[in-house]
Amino acid sequence: MFYLVGMVIAMNDRAFQDYYSEYYSSCYGCGSMNPHGLHIKSYWDGEATICHFTPEQYHTAFPGYVYGGLIASVMDCHAIGSAAAALYRAEDRVMGSDPSIRCVTASLKVDYLKPTPIGCELTLRGVIQEVKHKKVRVDVTLEAQGELRARGEVIAVRIPDNYAM
Amino acid sequence: MFYLVGMVIAMNDRAFQDYYSEYYSSCYGCGSMNPHGLHIKSYWDGEATICHFTPEQYHTAFPGYVYGGLIASVMDCHAIGSAAAALYRAEDRVMGSDPSIRCVTASLKVDYLKPTPIGCELTLRGVIQEVKHKKVRVDVTLEAQGELRARGEVIAVRIPDNYAM
Repeated sequence: MFYLVGMVIAMNDRAFQDYYSEYYSSCYGCGSMNPHGLHIKSYWDGEATICHFTPEQYHTAFPGYVYGGLIASVMDCHAIGSAAAALYRAEDRVMGSDPSIRCVTASLKVDYLKPTPIGCELTLRGVIQEVKHKKVRVDVTLEAQGELRARGEVIAVRIPDNYAM
Repeated sequence: MFYLVGMVIAMNDRAFQDYYSEYYSSCYGCGSMNPHGLHIKSYWDGEATICHFTPEQYHTAFPGYVYGGLIASVMDCHAIGSAAAALYRAEDRVMGSDPSIRCVTASLKVDYLKPTPIGCELTLRGVIQEVKHKKVRVDVTLEAQGELRARGEVIAVRIPDNYAM
């Protein structure tokens, strides 16, 4: 019994990106095998998804504030990971089971609502708005110091099974 | 006479970003003083604006292709530089003259039309779609190997004169 509970906790501790195959793990935003990358990690948080990320001091737009391109990047990877997880869940399949589900970005829209301070942790939340077999729409919010700073919308497209590696 | 011609050529050789003040030169995407940054450079090309940029090999989405977050980043900085240049031109002012004109991103939308191959130069073209005193809309295309790969739209907002440093 304790063993089983431990297994469940261990599975929930794995980020969506930890299930990506080696082929997809070179992504600059979230690939565990990219030594120069951002290494973002996304998880379920109830029906939503969550990612915590702390930018480096050099990820500046201007002194004291985070670069918008970095915000777009972390939103993109968080949404794409969330889309794959949503497809697994919609198909009642265990995350990471074969054939693997991976998505790419068809479109990304970011509204920058307030400057995002640098030097603190950012919290991204993804809400799955629509799941079709080949397409997932994910809305993302980004908060820093408890305030909403940016809002994004990502259209993710599923990579066909015969392409996914 | 030769001296004057030389001056004009030298001025045209300066990128929009080379006119940014020290305060704005720490931008990760285009700041000349950010040692970790991308250092993109944008120029007029007739009525349009142009930027050439070659991603690093580690800017991958998956093997052989450029990361979408990097594409969003270079589009953002190219559009924001283009917006400032368009405001100077609309006000019939010399680029870089005081009070300096700088913009920030209100929104960024990218449609990823085809995968972008890595290992070659990317060409970004900006078309100024609308110029108001406080707001500029810039459309951006991104080509690689002669083919259109992504299309972006950026809404840039002017930083008030009493804030710009």
